[in-house]
Amino acid sequence: MPKPGPAEVLIKVEATSICGTDLHIYRWDPWAAGRITSLPMTFGHEIAGTVVAVSPEAHHVRPGRFVSVEGHVFCGFCPPCRRGRAHICERLRILGVDFDGGFAEYLVLPERNAWEVDPRISPDVASIHDPFGNAVHTVFVDGTADDVVTGVVVVVGCGPIGLFALGIARAAGARLVIAVEPNDYRQDLAKKMGADLVIDPTREDPVAEVLEATEGHGAEVVLEMSGASRAIDQGTRMLARGGRMSLLGLPTEPVALDLTDQVIFKEARLFGVTGRELFRTWQQTTTLLAAGMVDVSPVITHRFPLARFEEAFEVAASRRSGKVILLPVTNAKE
Amino acid sequence: MPKPGPAEVLIKVEATSICGTDLHIYRWDPWAAGRITSLPMTFGHEIAGTVVAVSPEAHHVRPGRFVSVEGHVFCGFCPPCRRGRAHICERLRILGVDFDGGFAEYLVLPERNAWEVDPRISPDVASIHDPFGNAVHTVFVDGTADDVVTGVVVVVGCGPIGLFALGIARAAGARLVIAVEPNDYRQDLAKKMGADLVIDPTREDPVAEVLEATEGHGAEVVLEMSGASRAIDQGTRMLARGGRMSLLGLPTEPVALDLTDQVIFKEARLFGVTGRELFRTWQQTTTLLAAGMVDVSPVITHRFPLARFEEAFEVAASRRSGKVILLPVTNAKE
Amino acid sequence: MPKPGPAEVLIKVEATSICGTDLHIYRWDPWAAGRITSLPMTFGHEIAGTVVAVSPEAHHVRPGRFVSVEGHVFCGFCPPCRRGRAHICERLRILGVDFDGGFAEYLVLPERNAWEVDPRISPDVASIHDPFGNAVHTVFVDGTADDVVTGVVVVVGCGPIGLFALGIARAAGARLVIAVEPNDYRQDLAKKMGADLVIDPTREDPVAEVLEATEGHGAEVVLEMSGASRAIDQGTRMLARGGRMSLLGLPTEPVALDLTDQVIFKEARLFGVTGRELFRTWQQTTTLLAAGMVDVSPVITHRFPLARFEEAFEVAASRRSGKVILLPVTNAKE
Amino acid sequence: MPKPGPAEVLIKVEATSICGTDLHIYRWDPWAAGRITSLPMTFGHEIAGTVVAVSPEAHHVRPGRFVSVEGHVFCGFCPPCRRGRAHICERLRILGVDFDGGFAEYLVLPERNAWEVDPRISPDVASIHDPFGNAVHTVFVDGTADDVVTGVVVVVGCGPIGLFALGIARAAGARLVIAVEPNDYRQDLAKKMGADLVIDPTREDPVAEVLEATEGHGAEVVLEMSGASRAIDQGTRMLARGGRMSLLGLPTEPVALDLTDQVIFKEARLFGVTGRELFRTWQQTTTLLAAGMVDVSPVITHRFPLARFEEAFEVAASRRSGKVILLPVTNAKE
Repeated sequence: MPKPGPAEVLIKVEATSICGTDLHIYRWDPWAAGRITSLPMTFGHEIAGTVVAVSPEAHHVRPGRFVSVEGHVFCGFCPPCRRGRAHICERLRILGVDFDGGFAEYLVLPERNAWEVDPRISPDVASIHDPFGNAVHTVFVDGTADDVVTGVVVVVGCGPIGLFALGIARAAGARLVIAVEPNDYRQDLAKKMGADLVIDPTREDPVAEVLEATEGHGAEVVLEMSGASRAIDQGTRMLARGGRMSLLGLPTEPVALDLTDQVIFKEARLFGVTGRELFRTWQQTTTLLAAGMVDVSPVITHRFPLARFEEAFEVAASRRSGKVILLPVTNAKE
Repeated sequence: MPKPGPAEVLIKVEATSICGTDLHIYRWDPWAAGRITSLPMTFGHEIAGTVVAVSPEAHHVRPGRFVSVEGHVFCGFCPPCRRGRAHICERLRILGVDFDGGFAEYLVLPERNAWEVDPRISPDVASIHDPFGNAVHTVFVDGTADDVVTGVVVVVGCGPIGLFALGIARAAGARLVIAVEPNDYRQDLAKKMGADLVIDPTREDPVAEVLEATEGHGAEVVLEMSGASRAIDQGTRMLARGGRMSLLGLPTEPVALDLTDQVIFKEARLFGVTGRELFRTWQQTTTLLAAGMVDVSPVITHRFPLARFEEAFEVAASRRSGKVILLPVTNAKE
Repeated sequence: MPKPGPAEVLIKVEATSICGTDLHIYRWDPWAAGRITSLPMTFGHEIAGTVVAVSPEAHHVRPGRFVSVEGHVFCGFCPPCRRGRAHICERLRILGVDFDGGFAEYLVLPERNAWEVDPRISPDVASIHDPFGNAVHTVFVDGTADDVVTGVVVVVGCGPIGLFALGIARAAGARLVIAVEPNDYRQDLAKKMGADLVIDPTREDPVAEVLEATEGHGAEVVLEMSGASRAIDQGTRMLARGGRMSLLGLPTEPVALDLTDQVIFKEARLFGVTGRELFRTWQQTTTLLAAGMVDVSPVITHRFPLARFEEAFEVAASRRSGKVILLPVTNAKE
Repeated sequence: MPKPGPAEVLIKVEATSICGTDLHIYRWDPWAAGRITSLPMTFGHEIAGTVVAVSPEAHHVRPGRFVSVEGHVFCGFCPPCRRGRAHICERLRILGVDFDGGFAEYLVLPERNAWEVDPRISPDVASIHDPFGNAVHTVFVDGTADDVVTGVVVVVGCGPIGLFALGIARAAGARLVIAVEPNDYRQDLAKKMGADLVIDPTREDPVAEVLEATEGHGAEVVLEMSGASRAIDQGTRMLARGGRMSLLGLPTEPVALDLTDQVIFKEARLFGVTGRELFRTWQQTTTLLAAGMVDVSPVITHRFPLARFEEAFEVAASRRSGKVILLPVTNAKE
């Protein structure tokens, strides 16, 4: 059992969920082999649990508290940290990538990375605060909620984060929420999460469909979750004049964009998005989930005990799933 | 002599300046041949003059007033116009492109496109309010002056608008103003406009130079004025985490960007910029020029009478010039 | 029948609603006697109707179109107009106050003050776009939707505009919407408009109640609609650190505020709010109403034919009403 | 000599400056007697020094580094802290008020409250980073630099923070910087700090003067540093439509404001300001001072060895001084 270092806490894991990053690591693909240098290492970073011990310097998060975990450990002293942008810290260390994560019974973490959650929230919902927070940050990045309220919001790519984003845009007063997703299983989830219109880009032209749905004006907000070059290019083409695209999906190669007609003459704004704001996004996330403003139950499609992890990863990789939860054997709450 | 239509004014031209767009038209290159459909047409859109007649519906700009001209004529009723973004009007008509412009003795224009200028401003300075306004809008696009004050600002491409931007960033409290420009004539002008550091991208790696000048953190603001694919890509690489790039230069082909590492993980923001805000940018422009906060005299390098237009266009195309002014024969002020 | 002047349109009135300003005029109280100088004058400014004629200079709003009316006529040339803040124009002229309004069969208006509304919207809902827009602008003033999403929003004073604001805050994803209102009739309407909690300030301490409902932190947003000195002071006391208060209600005397403890140490922000943004607020208003995001039917409590105006004004003044609609005899739509 | 606790550092004091708060404590006025509960206590919180020891948990600020001190110690876990507003922490503890301060040879402080300063900066300039930061935060509060660039900025009350604000507004591209100050000594300093116009409110009407200097439009920005009720009221009256007033001066009683005409109809914005943003303001402060963008030497008018503290406090209280510096005997740098 790990011991909490200075200002750290020890957390007993109650639920974890599987992220796309975990799939890369599980398959040990070239990205994982190049990125993860300290072996062996426990991975997993979407975690809910109970604090069971705290170091003497930890004064705020008490033993017994139910918490969700922020996996980005930041230095607090580099220029971005000092100006309140700790999630883009120049010395970021990531749970389950740079140090031992949470597919385990216990983990240790800086106290400030433990976010208290109402104990009435279920462990599986608590474990998805991290990816839900990605979605919140993508929707509202840099104080742009004004774009969303009464705006047309298109979510491109409906993996779990895209699905969450549909619900968040709906809750924040978008007038029309559109999903672009080729996979029929996820198209169905998109409808359950509140999409007014679901476009299958393998059958329809998503740009033409969005323009038609907006009387030719285009969408005020495009949330890019796919990382696909073609989808990103299409995202710029479906943007209204003055529109905003948030980029969260990670393309694996350079993406060619028609900047002149689709960005410059339209005065479009493109925002890179990574992680989530520490911890403003967590406040929004907790509220949206605890107050029942977004119901994530359609997205949490599978649950497995930790011992059946192989099956769980297979399902998570299958594209016939939303979020897959892993539960430690000893999870009393379940 | 043209007659002012409803809510229009008649302006006697006192000075005009030559824009890059005018060079395209003068050469009648493929862009011009494809874009300009109503012939013959007078071109020229950077204009200063005196109002000599007004239509009965024009109540604000009086005859005798000295004005600079906003060449974007907007409808006032489309969605962008209605939300205060008239410069990206869906039915924009451009002076000297879509209707008769100002390389002439007189022109007519909607009253609201005439911007009153202090008569103590010289006609040549008044004529460059339009491109100076492009620079103002690029520097402060979408309310981003906070990025500039105490920030590092890099101007990529030092044609006249880039040169103006150097002076504006300086006036707005940038801590370090850097120019990237291959042409030695313009490098010299960049220094005169206040650049602390001038990088020649044909001899040095501008990304490495900017990182070195910023202790590895990168620049808070990059203002892209070149339209060159390679420069735009470099612009993203010299941005600090959380940095902002304004894109004004118009690439002629799709531009491949490393979105993952240079935009998404850094949470960079890319803003398309076109024209200038109607008319908030004009208020800023007038102030910066009338109050002497930016001295544009180094950029206005040549002046010709209108009759010597061939020579003027040759100089403007030579890259051995800043802004080239054309003066009508009858300009009493000169 | 009035004739449209240059760039004006003639509107056949289909419904009007009674505003508090109209009550002042109807009673001819000291404010009205001092403010309205051109007599006789038709008053009324919350109007829906059909365009029946247009001047030759009006090119956008066509005869036959169903419109709601923006009553603030702006110059377009003063500094606020030029920077896109026409609703605080230095030469504002107000319909039904400075020139003939809409308690009539017809009225004329600048074309740009006619806002097209989906003809499926009923005339009574179309007539309340003006006060609904006040509410929209108060909720989102100066791009502050981020305060509302997941925030606690308190509406102080539940006349029609306050009631609309409750529904708007709800639609924009507030986590808790609280009404403060002494009148039991309006308390009931507040519940119908979605208030989670209704505080009667004659029986309970609204500051204590808001603090209790927020675990002592206070509300992120207070929307002041009452104009009562005591309520404004209380509004500052119920604000969270960093909170925002929008002030729309008009106090009749100077208001003493504890700036040190309630504004400065808390870094509260107070925003004056008047009218609505031209025309960004109208875009939001149209969307919220046409898309059914806010159901205003509980607020529209009474409808009278224009001939029974005395009865209508009595009801509007009674505080046992929400919005009171007046319908011209000839209203074919009704 | 105090010992650094967990994550704390020990600082050898090289210079301190006297704040208005220190004068209250020195006189032991009712505020001080009520506020300071733990006695005896060393006061003083504007401090520059050298780190001489660090606790094992302090990894970023190394011994030997020259630092300026942020005196607001925050919890990091309350709602404002978690959303990046640590300067309005709900559990704020203030150096020299709530725990031992810096009118001493040594002090201990959390590592994160030590801000590294270029060692070429003199200790006296380093010691005034705290009040200079108050001025920076007041000028740019909540991302409002756009108001300042090309705007008219009025500073009401020219104690040291007001004097700094004049220089900062100048550096950030204000078009006209106006000081309102009754004291002739400080009027003189205001001119040295770049005020274009200095108004003596005992001889002239500052509202009339500001309106005259702005052709009747009023000032875009008023920075209230006096805390005087009458001056705050006047501040609202000199604001332009849409203008912004930052409130830093602390009135000792409720202040009556004409909200209707001076705030609501003008859509003025009032921002409470306290302390400075942690640590975005420090980045701006360091840049403005280290890059020489604001020359504070006129404001630093007196320097005394710590032993002559009585004389120093007398001068600081005399209103014939700017900033008064106290130097420990052992200050090798001096």
